[in-house]
Amino acid sequence: MKHLLSIEQLSREEIEGILDRAESFAEVGRRDIKKVPTLRGRTVVSLFYESSTRTSSSFDLAAKRLSADVVSVKAAGSSVEKGESLKDTVATLSAYDPAAIVIRHPYAGAAQMVAGWTAASVINAGDGKHEHPSQALLDVYTLRRKLGSLEGVRIWIVGDVLHSRVARSNLIAFNRMGAEVTVCGPPTLIPRGIEELGCDVAYGLEGIEEAEVVYALRMQKERMSESFVPSLREYAASFQIDSRRLQPRQLLMHPGPVNRGVELSGEAIDSPQSLITEQVAAGLVVRMAILYELLAGAEGAPSGEGESSRPTPIGTPA
Amino acid sequence: MKHLLSIEQLSREEIEGILDRAESFAEVGRRDIKKVPTLRGRTVVSLFYESSTRTSSSFDLAAKRLSADVVSVKAAGSSVEKGESLKDTVATLSAYDPAAIVIRHPYAGAAQMVAGWTAASVINAGDGKHEHPSQALLDVYTLRRKLGSLEGVRIWIVGDVLHSRVARSNLIAFNRMGAEVTVCGPPTLIPRGIEELGCDVAYGLEGIEEAEVVYALRMQKERMSESFVPSLREYAASFQIDSRRLQPRQLLMHPGPVNRGVELSGEAIDSPQSLITEQVAAGLVVRMAILYELLAGAEGAPSGEGESSRPTPIGTPA
Amino acid sequence: MKHLLSIEQLSREEIEGILDRAESFAEVGRRDIKKVPTLRGRTVVSLFYESSTRTSSSFDLAAKRLSADVVSVKAAGSSVEKGESLKDTVATLSAYDPAAIVIRHPYAGAAQMVAGWTAASVINAGDGKHEHPSQALLDVYTLRRKLGSLEGVRIWIVGDVLHSRVARSNLIAFNRMGAEVTVCGPPTLIPRGIEELGCDVAYGLEGIEEAEVVYALRMQKERMSESFVPSLREYAASFQIDSRRLQPRQLLMHPGPVNRGVELSGEAIDSPQSLITEQVAAGLVVRMAILYELLAGAEGAPSGEGESSRPTPIGTPA
Repeated sequence: MKHLLSIEQLSREEIEGILDRAESFAEVGRRDIKKVPTLRGRTVVSLFYESSTRTSSSFDLAAKRLSADVVSVKAAGSSVEKGESLKDTVATLSAYDPAAIVIRHPYAGAAQMVAGWTAASVINAGDGKHEHPSQALLDVYTLRRKLGSLEGVRIWIVGDVLHSRVARSNLIAFNRMGAEVTVCGPPTLIPRGIEELGCDVAYGLEGIEEAEVVYALRMQKERMSESFVPSLREYAASFQIDSRRLQPRQLLMHPGPVNRGVELSGEAIDSPQSLITEQVAAGLVVRMAILYELLAGAEGAPSGEGESSRPTPIGTPA
Repeated sequence: MKHLLSIEQLSREEIEGILDRAESFAEVGRRDIKKVPTLRGRTVVSLFYESSTRTSSSFDLAAKRLSADVVSVKAAGSSVEKGESLKDTVATLSAYDPAAIVIRHPYAGAAQMVAGWTAASVINAGDGKHEHPSQALLDVYTLRRKLGSLEGVRIWIVGDVLHSRVARSNLIAFNRMGAEVTVCGPPTLIPRGIEELGCDVAYGLEGIEEAEVVYALRMQKERMSESFVPSLREYAASFQIDSRRLQPRQLLMHPGPVNRGVELSGEAIDSPQSLITEQVAAGLVVRMAILYELLAGAEGAPSGEGESSRPTPIGTPA
Repeated sequence: MKHLLSIEQLSREEIEGILDRAESFAEVGRRDIKKVPTLRGRTVVSLFYESSTRTSSSFDLAAKRLSADVVSVKAAGSSVEKGESLKDTVATLSAYDPAAIVIRHPYAGAAQMVAGWTAASVINAGDGKHEHPSQALLDVYTLRRKLGSLEGVRIWIVGDVLHSRVARSNLIAFNRMGAEVTVCGPPTLIPRGIEELGCDVAYGLEGIEEAEVVYALRMQKERMSESFVPSLREYAASFQIDSRRLQPRQLLMHPGPVNRGVELSGEAIDSPQSLITEQVAAGLVVRMAILYELLAGAEGAPSGEGESSRPTPIGTPA
């Protein structure tokens, strides 16, 4: 595996392999020295055209815990502002011979294009409404730790499915792992024909009691002005997951950042059923695993000789 | 000591302990390799909701010189902009299991709240008008190096005392170290009842000759529009410390950044009595000492076994 | 050599020395571990008052590959916004005792002034319309690798010569290395008397066939509103380097970021004659060489004893 551009590209076995690797990094994370020397002397470029706290900090820290040097470029305050094309920016950053480029971009397909322009491994950290594969992997990881397996698990994904790359990547990943997915939201926010991806559709929360897992999506405030929802208040009245709707045996997930009081009530967020913090913790180890698989696995391993160019056993502290 | 939330919480002995530790880091700073391995493999999160050069760069570099990995989150360009609550942001960052979170926030009490939401050690890098304890510690450190002791030293704090967390933290710290403090400024900028904290009050610079130390505060330009002062020019006419007012035997301090020509004249800033640069240098070693005390001291020491989990003698280069 | 403030200051021998050093860092860059311990435990401050992707990321990564700790300060979101003077900002950052300060500033002469205010080595990363010496060095490096020598090589520098620090530094550097330079652009964008620096002047592209190297400058869009050029379209009609104008034996250079379709056509950028990506790659190793020369060369070498304070042979991996 050279790039991680989509969940679509991954078989169930490849997903399981990444999750197993992430488990071993979780063990590293419980040590005092939460670091391994795997990517020492190699460079990871983080190129974010949309603002982000959790995804960008998670990838940055993942790379640092693998001992890589990190170059972070944000669209604001960079030559991106001067109108440089994505292609030229990638050519520029590729000239540093990075091991990987982590890219977030508002256009669907951007990561795929970047992969055609660079010798580095490319990791899609979100491309428009298309995909967000590391999010899907961390969500599968979180559920697998909690439930052992996703086989036959019923998951409802609730909210703005139409505009959500998380919904799309997670639907594919959950299906691939054997879960049964229902997508739920107002008709204006459910893409036509989504059933063909292998899911049920619900236009209201009736029936959500059957789910073992409720996965709420972030409601983008700008959707109101675009007339997809009449108001956040009305959206919340019909689709907010609150502590009355959430059953004690149900698990609650959300990709963050949460709009408290919109898609989730404060009580629900803070309830014992909420896995939101576990998801963030999972993000770090899953992203370490992704970097490891792409850069230090069988194919991606450095080819030189010497102590540190051999694939480093994860067990060795940095 | 788990957190550093205020100067209020520290006894004179605890302050002395941090300053002694800072002295040993000053010795490290005179070496070619200005670095120790104390926090190798541990993560320090820096979360700044207000802009800052000196405090944020000082904490970041302090953490790096202790060999920690640093995750810096600024309010701009982060999910903070998307309206995520402080609580949720802290939960997110805490999921990385950081050793410490350094927080600056415009609301008094923010650091205290953060301490209730995370397992990490929390360091208050300024919370509204409340406290800025690392600033007070570096100022005491600077004076102790210069004068040996603060016992009986007369210090005038001049300027916008009302809105200044630095004034508040320094007043407490100077008192605790035995100094005699006078706060001085226009009546609109001196909080009522401040004498109860243990200081004299002056509404003009008359009498400032008695001080051994003149500590000028930054005048926020936005105070003019709020009618606290009629104009910066009038403020400067009455309260600017310039080379005529400054006695040759007096020491001059300022928390920075300075408004040249407002609270201080250019000549005063550049005079031999000015300790402003020493204060910044002190900031680095004092913040190393704070991180060390919280994270590698008796209680904060890593509990595992093995070479690097033992508290590292400061003398050992990284 | 203590500072790198201008190309003007460098003899041909000094330039050659830096380029030779850069060659050895290019060799390090082909290893798996692209890093040497030369500046371990030392601090490099990067202080950018103008936005930049390539120069700032290039210096940052260069410092990291030399194992330095890097403190990056951008004008936005820093105390610079609070109106702190450059002098005070430099005094603040100098208090951390950095080995070097890399400065970009909109005023010509800023780097020179900074050098007067700090004990650190100062590297000019662009000061107004004055100089951008590391750009000139990387361009000479790129051409030397391609052509062996610049002796007698004919180079046309095309575009907004008037406002370009790159044009100025490169003209000086190319001359010093023995090249024959022609500057070319509309009369409004060629400074009067530039011939005295040792170049020919052309007000149109006629005759450019004689050049072995075509060096296109970035057209700043704001120049239109300032009436230097009637429109980007008219500028492009007269001065754009496109694949019809570019001869197969000519080499094409540009300092980046490129305005595709303005000073260069997309085809020209992507042609085999384009050295633009090589220039960026050269930037990294040339900046490593600059840092090495200033900080670890004969004069700049750390004076202490012990393993890592000896000038580290470049061949030793970090």
